[in-house]
Amino acid sequence: MIKTIYILNGPNLNLLGTREPEIYGAATLTDIEDACAEKCKAAGYGLSFHQSNIEGEIVDQIQRAGKDGVAVLINAAAYTHTSVAIYDGLKTLSIPVIEVHISQPASRESFRQQSFIAPVATGSISGFGTNSYLLAIDAAIDSLK
Amino acid sequence: MIKTIYILNGPNLNLLGTREPEIYGAATLTDIEDACAEKCKAAGYGLSFHQSNIEGEIVDQIQRAGKDGVAVLINAAAYTHTSVAIYDGLKTLSIPVIEVHISQPASRESFRQQSFIAPVATGSISGFGTNSYLLAIDAAIDSLK
Amino acid sequence: MIKTIYILNGPNLNLLGTREPEIYGAATLTDIEDACAEKCKAAGYGLSFHQSNIEGEIVDQIQRAGKDGVAVLINAAAYTHTSVAIYDGLKTLSIPVIEVHISQPASRESFRQQSFIAPVATGSISGFGTNSYLLAIDAAIDSLK
Amino acid sequence: MIKTIYILNGPNLNLLGTREPEIYGAATLTDIEDACAEKCKAAGYGLSFHQSNIEGEIVDQIQRAGKDGVAVLINAAAYTHTSVAIYDGLKTLSIPVIEVHISQPASRESFRQQSFIAPVATGSISGFGTNSYLLAIDAAIDSLK
Amino acid sequence: MIKTIYILNGPNLNLLGTREPEIYGAATLTDIEDACAEKCKAAGYGLSFHQSNIEGEIVDQIQRAGKDGVAVLINAAAYTHTSVAIYDGLKTLSIPVIEVHISQPASRESFRQQSFIAPVATGSISGFGTNSYLLAIDAAIDSLK
Amino acid sequence: MIKTIYILNGPNLNLLGTREPEIYGAATLTDIEDACAEKCKAAGYGLSFHQSNIEGEIVDQIQRAGKDGVAVLINAAAYTHTSVAIYDGLKTLSIPVIEVHISQPASRESFRQQSFIAPVATGSISGFGTNSYLLAIDAAIDSLK
Amino acid sequence: MIKTIYILNGPNLNLLGTREPEIYGAATLTDIEDACAEKCKAAGYGLSFHQSNIEGEIVDQIQRAGKDGVAVLINAAAYTHTSVAIYDGLKTLSIPVIEVHISQPASRESFRQQSFIAPVATGSISGFGTNSYLLAIDAAIDSLK
Amino acid sequence: MIKTIYILNGPNLNLLGTREPEIYGAATLTDIEDACAEKCKAAGYGLSFHQSNIEGEIVDQIQRAGKDGVAVLINAAAYTHTSVAIYDGLKTLSIPVIEVHISQPASRESFRQQSFIAPVATGSISGFGTNSYLLAIDAAIDSLK
Amino acid sequence: MIKTIYILNGPNLNLLGTREPEIYGAATLTDIEDACAEKCKAAGYGLSFHQSNIEGEIVDQIQRAGKDGVAVLINAAAYTHTSVAIYDGLKTLSIPVIEVHISQPASRESFRQQSFIAPVATGSISGFGTNSYLLAIDAAIDSLK
Amino acid sequence: MIKTIYILNGPNLNLLGTREPEIYGAATLTDIEDACAEKCKAAGYGLSFHQSNIEGEIVDQIQRAGKDGVAVLINAAAYTHTSVAIYDGLKTLSIPVIEVHISQPASRESFRQQSFIAPVATGSISGFGTNSYLLAIDAAIDSLK
Amino acid sequence: MIKTIYILNGPNLNLLGTREPEIYGAATLTDIEDACAEKCKAAGYGLSFHQSNIEGEIVDQIQRAGKDGVAVLINAAAYTHTSVAIYDGLKTLSIPVIEVHISQPASRESFRQQSFIAPVATGSISGFGTNSYLLAIDAAIDSLK
Amino acid sequence: MIKTIYILNGPNLNLLGTREPEIYGAATLTDIEDACAEKCKAAGYGLSFHQSNIEGEIVDQIQRAGKDGVAVLINAAAYTHTSVAIYDGLKTLSIPVIEVHISQPASRESFRQQSFIAPVATGSISGFGTNSYLLAIDAAIDSLK
Repeated sequence: MIKTIYILNGPNLNLLGTREPEIYGAATLTDIEDACAEKCKAAGYGLSFHQSNIEGEIVDQIQRAGKDGVAVLINAAAYTHTSVAIYDGLKTLSIPVIEVHISQPASRESFRQQSFIAPVATGSISGFGTNSYLLAIDAAIDSLK
Repeated sequence: MIKTIYILNGPNLNLLGTREPEIYGAATLTDIEDACAEKCKAAGYGLSFHQSNIEGEIVDQIQRAGKDGVAVLINAAAYTHTSVAIYDGLKTLSIPVIEVHISQPASRESFRQQSFIAPVATGSISGFGTNSYLLAIDAAIDSLK
Repeated sequence: MIKTIYILNGPNLNLLGTREPEIYGAATLTDIEDACAEKCKAAGYGLSFHQSNIEGEIVDQIQRAGKDGVAVLINAAAYTHTSVAIYDGLKTLSIPVIEVHISQPASRESFRQQSFIAPVATGSISGFGTNSYLLAIDAAIDSLK
Repeated sequence: MIKTIYILNGPNLNLLGTREPEIYGAATLTDIEDACAEKCKAAGYGLSFHQSNIEGEIVDQIQRAGKDGVAVLINAAAYTHTSVAIYDGLKTLSIPVIEVHISQPASRESFRQQSFIAPVATGSISGFGTNSYLLAIDAAIDSLK
Repeated sequence: MIKTIYILNGPNLNLLGTREPEIYGAATLTDIEDACAEKCKAAGYGLSFHQSNIEGEIVDQIQRAGKDGVAVLINAAAYTHTSVAIYDGLKTLSIPVIEVHISQPASRESFRQQSFIAPVATGSISGFGTNSYLLAIDAAIDSLK
Repeated sequence: MIKTIYILNGPNLNLLGTREPEIYGAATLTDIEDACAEKCKAAGYGLSFHQSNIEGEIVDQIQRAGKDGVAVLINAAAYTHTSVAIYDGLKTLSIPVIEVHISQPASRESFRQQSFIAPVATGSISGFGTNSYLLAIDAAIDSLK
Repeated sequence: MIKTIYILNGPNLNLLGTREPEIYGAATLTDIEDACAEKCKAAGYGLSFHQSNIEGEIVDQIQRAGKDGVAVLINAAAYTHTSVAIYDGLKTLSIPVIEVHISQPASRESFRQQSFIAPVATGSISGFGTNSYLLAIDAAIDSLK
Repeated sequence: MIKTIYILNGPNLNLLGTREPEIYGAATLTDIEDACAEKCKAAGYGLSFHQSNIEGEIVDQIQRAGKDGVAVLINAAAYTHTSVAIYDGLKTLSIPVIEVHISQPASRESFRQQSFIAPVATGSISGFGTNSYLLAIDAAIDSLK
Repeated sequence: MIKTIYILNGPNLNLLGTREPEIYGAATLTDIEDACAEKCKAAGYGLSFHQSNIEGEIVDQIQRAGKDGVAVLINAAAYTHTSVAIYDGLKTLSIPVIEVHISQPASRESFRQQSFIAPVATGSISGFGTNSYLLAIDAAIDSLK
Repeated sequence: MIKTIYILNGPNLNLLGTREPEIYGAATLTDIEDACAEKCKAAGYGLSFHQSNIEGEIVDQIQRAGKDGVAVLINAAAYTHTSVAIYDGLKTLSIPVIEVHISQPASRESFRQQSFIAPVATGSISGFGTNSYLLAIDAAIDSLK
Repeated sequence: MIKTIYILNGPNLNLLGTREPEIYGAATLTDIEDACAEKCKAAGYGLSFHQSNIEGEIVDQIQRAGKDGVAVLINAAAYTHTSVAIYDGLKTLSIPVIEVHISQPASRESFRQQSFIAPVATGSISGFGTNSYLLAIDAAIDSLK
Repeated sequence: MIKTIYILNGPNLNLLGTREPEIYGAATLTDIEDACAEKCKAAGYGLSFHQSNIEGEIVDQIQRAGKDGVAVLINAAAYTHTSVAIYDGLKTLSIPVIEVHISQPASRESFRQQSFIAPVATGSISGFGTNSYLLAIDAAIDSLK
């Protein structure tokens, strides 16, 4: 059976590419999904790609990934900074968890300085636009070896 | 085509009028919707009025307002004080955003002193009961001129 | 008509018994529901038992409990520490509210030291595993006398 | 005898229209006074409009308003964030008090996040330029009904 | 030999029932002791019940309980919030420790939000008046099984 | 030449007796002045009694007291909590300075917990209504011996 | 029966007069007791004067004063800044409570800036040496009228 | 027409030279004015020198300097640390603003560590006694070149 | 007359050796007393060794040491972090005071990071088990030379 | 001329592989250098690899990289959390800067939660052991396209 | 022998003039050294001018200045905000110390608000570009008179 | 081969004896080295004694001690309070580490209250002047037994 990598995306990421492209780039979330799918396929992995604006649905997806996936990449967006529920969900996982961000939260508002994802993630990658996702796939596959 | 004003209401506001009327007044959320609809209609605007207890659904509605609306009035209730996701959603909008509160949060619990809505709103109106909504409609229409 | 006690459970509690049993014990959430149902029945009460990963759905359930229930037991899990919305929902109730925790949050991460449930609860019970629920049912029934 | 609404303006507001018009707009304080006078007159109210750079003089005016006025609109400018004396003065009033701001303090420096006016005001209106004053007159008149 | 449960009470609890009965109820500390003794006896346990206004005497009693008792129930009252000595004493015990409160400290002064008992207790029960003690006896006996 | 005691009163104290008498008592500031004058006269001292809503005028009066007076009693009201200027003025004095309050600031809002008067005062007297002034005159005269 | 005023003194005050007289003056605690006794007697009151280094014994004395006394003067010394137990004890009293200090804590170490006595005292007097006690007796007698 | 430099002095600076000369030096404010006038005259500039104990009058003077002056030197004394009004006034200026202090606030009380002048000043000079003013005139003239 | 060194031990230290020996070592407090007595005797000093769980009794012992002793070694245990009373007591001494700890508080809970003993001690020695006491005797004797 | 990537390593990283290999892995810094050199060479880039325990030498190397390099990868180790000098050095660069960490600082001591590198880095990669460096080379090369 | 003024410059100041000239001006550190040398020479003083990126080397230079110099001017750049070592070094000096900054730190990042130089400097001059150095030489020479 | 004890000294300690002898005593660092050498020799140990003003050189010395030494005594002076690099270096050691201070940091500036050495040291000795070093040698030798 094919091994599946889960990529979970948080609130407002469905707007990527159409809003503030000067900040977040011109790539849409579908573009990112396509690039990730291609990369996973080339490496012999399946991809399960999700986006939700609802904190609890992301918790649901984390639980599903815990059952069916081999790794979780998560760009929790705004929930990165406020969600103990996602923190708790990720802590129950025994597979690699990689925190991903398109931009660099450390150079933004002060309330973005706290991450509830980082302490329960294997590793974190931020600031490289779409490439953050692709590097994270490399990192995930590497840590699965 | 008629221009539509979105009014978004956060958690527990569906209980208005039936619980603690001595604090929040006797008007139900439906009474408020009716008064707003009447005022919008008189000014030649449509009204799209919503309530949700779910943070992510309010983000959905903000995104919809960004596509179809000319202004957003938002009483985020409890999420005013905790939601970076709503903050991020509102920041993507290029139409007027008006923060509305029935009561005066500044004279309540200390955790209500921080608003994630105010910094990304055109303006804020609080403390006037149902009238806060009607004043906000006036303000929205004025800033659309 | 039979009087119903509501028991509301927050995010990730559906994983009980299958994950980290050395911490949370071997009992599943269904085991807990069964034990509670039996205890309620013996005392002549009905039980309405819920779990959700979504903050706003827990607010919905609180509102329903306010209409149909005689007491609310709530283990809000991660939302205990972040949810003003649940705080607001519980504050509208005029029936007993009992905060329940399986483990002892006070001996865990510092962000678990704040509870938004405790200040609006009649009482709190934590640290006794499944037994926390059963003691809370006793407490609820006692305060309904 | 005609009922008089007091509008009190704090430090540096006498410079409106001539300094940083890109931020505060082109309207001078006299323009605002004229617009307010017209609106009050149309509604059958008198207007008593003041500006002072001196904290204690604003306290004097608040006391006078408490004797002769039916409502107080106050844009305390910089004193909003530092004056316990104005807070104490407003707390002695039994008539409606409305906090007014031309800009949105919540999106400015961190020391503007605290307001000593808001906790003792009936309501607050901010961010709508000159229109903040006119909306506040509406709100005042409404709460006098 | 009969197994003894220690119940330790902190400063001012000797005034129960005679002072502020509207807050703390009409039961005196003797009433509570009687109810606890009856419950322990019915379950086949002995009871050793103490009260002291002196922090160090409570430490003495904790040490005695560690030698002669099978469980400690402790309502440290004011010392809950200030006593590292009691914290240290409880940490040396290898028997169950249960924190008890008659009222709900979380809804009182801010300096009552920190508990030095909770992090070293097996579990905590608060807010149920005299019944907090009886529930704690149940919990103690349950955890001794 | 007769020795003069200065009594300085801060913002809003001119309203004493007519506003919120249930809190501040029925005595007006004139009543207090009369009682103080009588007490000073009986002890062979003159009295120079002032009130101002303006922080800088109180600084002026402190400087005058430093030149012409033998002691300063100061109830700085709201400026107690915010005025470094008054602190600096008092620090230049070499005569006794006594801080006076009608009510007990320690049991009021948290921003009243800091006093800029106390660290530069010989002593402080608060909470005894008009009598706070009379006790302070006793204390002043005693420390002049 | 003669009405008794209780004067309670906290830790290290038994050293008065013999240690650091340049700070605390040359008067011993016995000198203070004598001066207080004389003043009480002249006014027709009895005096019950105590000193203890033990926090809980001061709580005991507060409770005794609540039963047998008409007023409590308390110089809790170091416990002023740390004792919730004394705070709780004083809060149960319905007679006047007056906080007394020989020196002026506001001009000393930062940990002396918080008082647990002031918020539950009728009034506070500090900084006048032995005279602080005598002024407090005046204040007590005045508030008993 | 001669170009005028404004020098504004805050509260208590009128006492210079007569009070605490060991700290602030023997020069009076008139001595400083004379030295500044001489230096300005030699460089071909006029001098407008003011002192006020009233925060709002300093704001008035800042506004006047904005109309008639080419540079502002300001020693706001105590208001340095508390006045948002002066901060706002200085921010409206488009001429050089230089913060001056006779002593070194950084080595004094902790509440003197925050300056509301520095962030809106071209530059700051402190710690050199009267010479701080003369250096600031040099700096002003240099930045006017 | 023989010169006596006082060694004072705080709460729970009477349990040494019997509880958690893996942390605190196998030596009992009597073992420590014996080792200290031997060392003092060899150096020609007497030893007065005490332990109490009661904060105020430790204050009593400090006062006694001030009268009869030549040096004080104090391991205040939990009271190290909370006792202003002990701080005040030690500050009255004119003999050497040495703070002793068996373990290294700096590597334990955050509330152990503050010491009320260190600022009033001649020196501090921590982390060397029983040897901390013996080194402190050396240090005391050395500073008595 | 070949384009050179600079990789800068901070204090104690020269110990990699020989100390605490269970935490930091068995790879030595030379192993990492070899792996990076190989990867750079394959991509047609040169590598300039440095380690220093001295903060200022790392600043020197940053300046050199700014002159001769096309990208900087920096694992500042302990200086990540304390060095404004490195922050300032990196801010002067106009080439990509990538923050690298072997472990995940977010799950370690609280003083490691602040990074002075992240706000001035293009992006950050942490938690993947040696692979963090290789991923960062990929990211650097990608951002140079 | 000629009297020598030491001017010490901290990290990254060697880049002046070539990097971000719009912020720091076009003058290089050599330009500044030349201007300072000329000014010192004209006043009959020698100049010893240094720059280092290494905190400890700046401490070395401070010690040397203490031996051979008559005054120290120090622009510690980034180390201004973090170096207790430089603070300690400067505190050992008995010659004038003048803190210099090219820009105005008060209007930059929040971590630049604390200066470890200011509390141990005779005076501070900031915000005047190269001229800050020249004014500081004037100030140094003046305080040497 | 002889066993060597490393003694490392931080910034400005090379000035001992010549600067502020009233605080730090008249002993120079060479005096201390001599006394330590004598004591080590008597006990059969070698001594490797170093001082550096440069943080990174102290890290170098710690690493060398880890290779060649049997114990490290470290008086990191100013770096005690700021250096995570030294903390990290010490944490890699498996030999005894003893923190030494000549004076008592706890009674000095507030920024000296945090030690980055203490949490990673076996024990700490402070406040005994030169004797702190000698006591630490005793402690080191004792813990090597």
